[in-house]
Formats: sequence, structure tokens, C-alpha cells
Amino acid sequence: MFSAEVTQRSWNNADPREARRAIRSGLFKKHTAGVAPGYVQANLCVLPKDWADEFLLFCHRNPKPCPILALSDPGDPHLPSLGEDLDVRTDLSGYRVFKDGVFVEERSDILDLWRDDFVTFAIGCSFSFEEALIEAGVPLKHIDRDECVAVYGTSVDCAPAGRFRGKLVVSMRPLKPKDAIRAIQITSRFPNVHGAPVHIGNPEMIGVNLAKTYLGTGAGDVAPDELPVFWACGVTPQSVVENARPPICITHVPGKMLVTDRRNTSLASF
Amino acid sequence: MFSAEVTQRSWNNADPREARRAIRSGLFKKHTAGVAPGYVQANLCVLPKDWADEFLLFCHRNPKPCPILALSDPGDPHLPSLGEDLDVRTDLSGYRVFKDGVFVEERSDILDLWRDDFVTFAIGCSFSFEEALIEAGVPLKHIDRDECVAVYGTSVDCAPAGRFRGKLVVSMRPLKPKDAIRAIQITSRFPNVHGAPVHIGNPEMIGVNLAKTYLGTGAGDVAPDELPVFWACGVTPQSVVENARPPICITHVPGKMLVTDRRNTSLASF
Repeated sequence: MFSAEVTQRSWNNADPREARRAIRSGLFKKHTAGVAPGYVQANLCVLPKDWADEFLLFCHRNPKPCPILALSDPGDPHLPSLGEDLDVRTDLSGYRVFKDGVFVEERSDILDLWRDDFVTFAIGCSFSFEEALIEAGVPLKHIDRDECVAVYGTSVDCAPAGRFRGKLVVSMRPLKPKDAIRAIQITSRFPNVHGAPVHIGNPEMIGVNLAKTYLGTGAGDVAPDELPVFWACGVTPQSVVENARPPICITHVPGKMLVTDRRNTSLASF
Repeated sequence: MFSAEVTQRSWNNADPREARRAIRSGLFKKHTAGVAPGYVQANLCVLPKDWADEFLLFCHRNPKPCPILALSDPGDPHLPSLGEDLDVRTDLSGYRVFKDGVFVEERSDILDLWRDDFVTFAIGCSFSFEEALIEAGVPLKHIDRDECVAVYGTSVDCAPAGRFRGKLVVSMRPLKPKDAIRAIQITSRFPNVHGAPVHIGNPEMIGVNLAKTYLGTGAGDVAPDELPVFWACGVTPQSVVENARPPICITHVPGKMLVTDRRNTSLASF
């Protein structure tokens, strides 16, 4: 079924187990947007136990940017609630290693870096609620244009926990008013993947200049008949962890997410 | 318990049955804001059967401005689903009579006008969702100021049905962005009392000039850190019925609503 020549498109209907096997064996090395549609993809963050305890507190205090989908026991590279065979050391198509908050290398597996005090956080990602928005007929410009969503730093402080502190990072989707109302309804059902927006309307109120993105290419692109709608973003924990400078931290490469066996629809709260 | 000297304030804790009895006996003649808190109050519209059939179709096609809470059989002045003893001929503290679309008189009962082809519509009212908003800590300026909510005509056509046609009328509440998001969540739970907003943000998109209210005193009063949030309004069916000019139509006097035994919380869809 799968070969080294596999294209991104041919993976669009892949089963998540099949996708992880192909990634694990090195056959698939690309980003995971569109892979195993309907299934949850997660942000990865691996920290040593003493840092992980504090980071868990940070996530607990900041559930909108840091919704934890699964958390491992120290040293255990498995997350059985997200996939029975899932091994976080091999099942992502790209890893980033940070030492003392500084990016040092990108890798295709972390087998030889693994330690028995490593704790894995799988953190919810907006891919899940974007699928629900698209199915509901809410147009998402960045997807229609095949661009990354616009991401902004804000002036809003996260609730600090120990060595972890920093500003909220948000993603922005420009929506017509009726679609904004529908999007608030839909994303409210998904508290584990950032949930309802944190802001709508006036970017200045949260310290955002629409022309200055943190990531993404949708800068300032809000039409006169649209409102900018802001959701808490999974880049927040990543930026907070980098600022805290733990001796080691491992994350996914942006866009190369952890593909899980949980269905997106299973995250809906009602 | 009740006397002719009863004040508005002393009714704030009244049971709805007790309130209706006092209205029926002529002891209470005031508006019903604050009466029997926690219980649904409804807009009243009484029409002859041949007009009622078409108006039912209109309400069905326009559920956001015209959510029907109860509908009587022709000639039956009771609405047992809203109160066992309820009699729509006597249980409101004020009625308005329209002939051929023209207001002719205000009355304290409609016993001698009643006909065996009269059909009663009880239509949901925003009092119910405003209670839920206040309980959730969403500040409503018009209530804090003891004013009527700001009501506007729009350029949005209702879906016509037979002789009934017209523009959507909306109520507007200025809210801070975080409260607007919360208000969308809360009112989405109450589809029988107008439900989620129909618009947020740019008034011009729905043909509204904030300085020109249809009713209410909150004209244009949106602070720079607020968004105008628009809900479909129960004034819509009233204005549509007036435009259709049925030979006779009876409504409540604005603010003198039908007090029912249904709890507001019973209207929540989840």
C-alpha cells in the first residue's frame, strides 16, 4: 500500500495507524496536514520530569492555549490513550531539540536521546476544530489559499507557574459576522483543542498589530465585511518553554504533528 | 399577600400563578419586567384562524425573530403548556387591539372581544436569555441603566409567507469582546427565545444606523472597547402583522408580557 514514492495527496485517506507505521519506518517524512483526516493531531512537548511537573501546572492554569490531550508517565514513550502502538520516539515525521532554550537540531527520531525521566505532553491543535468549521461550511481563507494560519503575539500575560511564564500567542481567522458567530458556537464544543475564541474584533485591545505576524502569511488580511477572530494558539506553550530554558526539550517540527487514533468528533463536548 | 398598593418591587419574588391571579383580578396593572423572576415571559399575538395559518407558516420560516413557545386551538383561550390556569383573555396587564393594521385601543382584558376563531401565539422573548446572561456575569448596560434595550429596523428581508412579509427587527446590546463571545455561547442554548445573535460588529452590513433606534434609548451607545451584538427581536412579528393589516389582531402592550409557569432554564437546549 505505501511506498517511498508516496505523495502527500495519497495519504489523505490514510488510517492513523498506517500513517504512524509509514512515518516510523521512514517511508513518510512530510508534514501531516491532510494525513488521516478525521483524526486528532497533537503538538508534542517532551521535558525532564522536574520541569514537566511545573509545566503541567502551567498548562492547568492556561487551558485555552495549553489543552493537554495526553500525558505520559516518566520514561514511558507510549501514549496508549491516543494509540495503542504509539511511540513518541519514532512516530513523528520531524523533531526539534532545544537545549537551554536554544534550538540545536532537527531529527527524524529521538530513540538515542530518550531518557527515563522524560515526560511527554500531547497538546491539542486547531486542526481538529478547523475540520469541524469546514464541515459546517465556515470558509477559512488560509486553508483555501494553502497558507499557514496567521499567528500573533499578544500583550496578554499567561498565568505563570514556576519557571514558566510568558505572553499568550493567538491564531487569527478573518470571518464574516455570521460565520464568526457560527465559529464561536462550533469551537466552544472543542475545549480540548483551544475551544472558543479569546477575542473578536479590535486587535489593539490584546496588543495585536495585524500587519505583524509571529508566524503565518495571512498578515492583516481582514476585509471590511469581516471581523478578526482570535483563538489561543499551541505556539504559546512552545514559546513559554523556550523562554524557560530547560536543559533539554523536544518538540515536533511545526506542521509535523503527532497523528493519533482519536477521532476529532470524540473531542466535542456536546 | 397582595393588595391594590402592591409595588413593582414587591412582585419581584412572585410566583407566576400568583402574579397571573393578581393581574386577572385587576390588582396588578404594571409592566412585568422583574415579575416572577426565573419564569418565561412571552409576547402575545392573537389572530383569526385564516390569518393564523399563514402567520404560523411565517413563524416557521423565521424562527429566530418568531420562536413559537405555544399555540392555541382556534377559540381556546388557554395555553396549558405555559400554565394550567392560564387564560389569555384576562392574564395580561395590558392589551393592544389593531384593526386593519391600525392601533385602535388599549384594554385591560379582551373577554368581550373573544371569538371562537381566535388563535393565540405565545412568542419567545429576550427576557429569558437576558436572565441567563446576567447570571453568567455578562453586563447588560440597558438593564443597569433601567432602560429599554435598543431596537433597530434592518435591511434584511424575512422569508415571506402569504400576506406576511417585512424586514427583520433586531435588538442590540453593546458588549466587550470577551462578553460578546460568552453571550453567543449562552444565547445559543436558547433557540426558543431568539437564540444566537444574527450579527456582530459592523451595523452597516445589516442596514443599521446605530443613531436611529426603532425603539429604546440606547442609541449608538457602543464604547470603543465594545462590539455591537444584534439579536433577532420579537418586535419583528409585531411589525410584520401590522403591515399585513389583518381585520383584527390583539397583542400585549410592550413590557406587559404573558407571565408563564415555564422556567427560563427549561428552555436551554443543553
